Amino acid sequence: MRALVLNDQLTFDPNYPVPAPTAGEAIVRVTCAGVCNTDIELQRGYFGFRGVPGHEFVGVVESLMPYPAGAAQIAAGDIGTVITIGDRVVGEINCVPCESTSRNYFERAQDPTRNTLGIDRRDGAFADLVSVPIANLLRVPAIISDEEAVFVEPLAAACQILEQVHIKTTDRVFVLGDGKLGLLCAQVLATTGCHLTAVGKHANKLAILRQRGIHTQLLGEWDGARVADVVVECTGSPAGFETARRMLRPRGTLVLKSTYHGLPQVNLTMIVVDEISIVGSRCGPFDAALRLLAAKRIDVQSLVHARYPLEQGVQAFEHAQRAGVLKVLVQV
Amino acid sequence: MRALVLNDQLTFDPNYPVPAPTAGEAIVRVTCAGVCNTDIELQRGYFGFRGVPGHEFVGVVESLMPYPAGAAQIAAGDIGTVITIGDRVVGEINCVPCESTSRNYFERAQDPTRNTLGIDRRDGAFADLVSVPIANLLRVPAIISDEEAVFVEPLAAACQILEQVHIKTTDRVFVLGDGKLGLLCAQVLATTGCHLTAVGKHANKLAILRQRGIHTQLLGEWDGARVADVVVECTGSPAGFETARRMLRPRGTLVLKSTYHGLPQVNLTMIVVDEISIVGSRCGPFDAALRLLAAKRIDVQSLVHARYPLEQGVQAFEHAQRAGVLKVLVQV
Repeated sequence: MRALVLNDQLTFDPNYPVPAPTAGEAIVRVTCAGVCNTDIELQRGYFGFRGVPGHEFVGVVESLMPYPAGAAQIAAGDIGTVITIGDRVVGEINCVPCESTSRNYFERAQDPTRNTLGIDRRDGAFADLVSVPIANLLRVPAIISDEEAVFVEPLAAACQILEQVHIKTTDRVFVLGDGKLGLLCAQVLATTGCHLTAVGKHANKLAILRQRGIHTQLLGEWDGARVADVVVECTGSPAGFETARRMLRPRGTLVLKSTYHGLPQVNLTMIVVDEISIVGSRCGPFDAALRLLAAKRIDVQSLVHARYPLEQGVQAFEHAQRAGVLKVLVQV
Repeated sequence: MRALVLNDQLTFDPNYPVPAPTAGEAIVRVTCAGVCNTDIELQRGYFGFRGVPGHEFVGVVESLMPYPAGAAQIAAGDIGTVITIGDRVVGEINCVPCESTSRNYFERAQDPTRNTLGIDRRDGAFADLVSVPIANLLRVPAIISDEEAVFVEPLAAACQILEQVHIKTTDRVFVLGDGKLGLLCAQVLATTGCHLTAVGKHANKLAILRQRGIHTQLLGEWDGARVADVVVECTGSPAGFETARRMLRPRGTLVLKSTYHGLPQVNLTMIVVDEISIVGSRCGPFDAALRLLAAKRIDVQSLVHARYPLEQGVQAFEHAQRAGVLKVLVQV
């Protein structure tokens, strides 16, 4: 089959072996996949990944290998829908073996036996076919387009903030970073009715949020006032942490979303002096993201900046790294 | 009056000006004061402090300047005892002006108008007399000795952990660091009945905890298992953070108690991947510490390694920095 393969560098392989599913897995024919910042970080050595990247995808179930009798995992997604051949699906990225007793996205995300689709010891979705545990799949409602569905994975990660931190309507919340994840996090936080400000460096990206009635501010316009109850750090840059910390009021909460290759210097002493709480936040609930998309409460279409066929996937990766570019899609 | 004074270096001054109390303050004649690691850090440039250090003390109220009519602060400690001349007292270190509406230790600890006794823009207790807001004072029950009472401030800081994190009896908790604060934190955490292990580098210090039935482990004996629900980082060293992080299970809680001069490198990405929570923890409830000491539930006497008269305060600081030394007291 055709696939993008990351070894010493990323290449297009027209004859990559088709995935061999094990019990409890589905073969999904990929329709569309998104290039994520994590994919770019993988190219730079993050996690030492080798294989087919790609963890944001939508596709159609081509075949199913049933779970063995007595398996803890069941042949259904989180929300109880039975998956059948021909279903249009998205898939959670943390994959556990049949023997695991993890029953939902939350348990799978920290299951010690997990591997991670297109990120850690498991081939991903920049390919004709991808093998995914059946329990990880969720059917996509018809009202959600393929291009929208590709955003379910990062949108779920944004939804995870609301699972971990109680955002009150009176909270002052800053989302720091106007990249793809920042724009999704800001839109999810806006659903709470909190006092929200999205802070970034790019007027054109922030404009996507302003069009949806979200208050925005260029980072250079920040007056230095430490008033935020919650800051969500989405810059994807090691420097973002200290900026976020300085925006917080004492005893505020800093939600960390950024992952990258590198170890920033951090003022841990001021975390003690200001009694700040920090919450690491990663993967989230796909069903919540699907509900938001089905209700048309999140604009993801404005984030699509380019589309490439799979054969030009290497160019898609290059395009995704250009300044100012948001989501680049790979059509399979 | 006599005082230890920190300018470019620490010196004994036999003729330091007596404090001039403002409205709402008490003059306390110091009986005994403890040398804290923070005092050593102040000598190294932490906070740029100049003046009389000392924030762990017990003394006797010598005079009172009443609060002005209508002041938000009242002439009573947190637990409602009216302070009178002749009372034996300890004092909370975060001091706010009469106009402040902060009403208790918790609000004062982050009041933006605060200064901090012997740490930040306010003379402390290594002196014959110290001026302290009346609202910060708490009377010491007769069953608590002067030497024990000096430990109320750091013991309150240990108690703050229980205010911030719900420690369950089934939680596996590691206290990392066997210095003064670590030994106090371990004893406070032991009151919860949790599955506690105190981890340090010094068998003789850990022995103080073992004598009280607390399980201890040398850091070198740690098997690398990431099983802790909660790790309390008390090493006072920048390297302690990464060790603490590696002991935590995914989604565990890291309580930060250490403050120091310096910016360690931190693996923020793994905080996201493991979805760890971090809680900065500083000053705590004096009344809780007094109750624990009155009930003889905490052994502080074993931590006293040396006593010096005020005139030899410089030597007391030197002694406190020797390897293996726990609390050094200054008798005034």
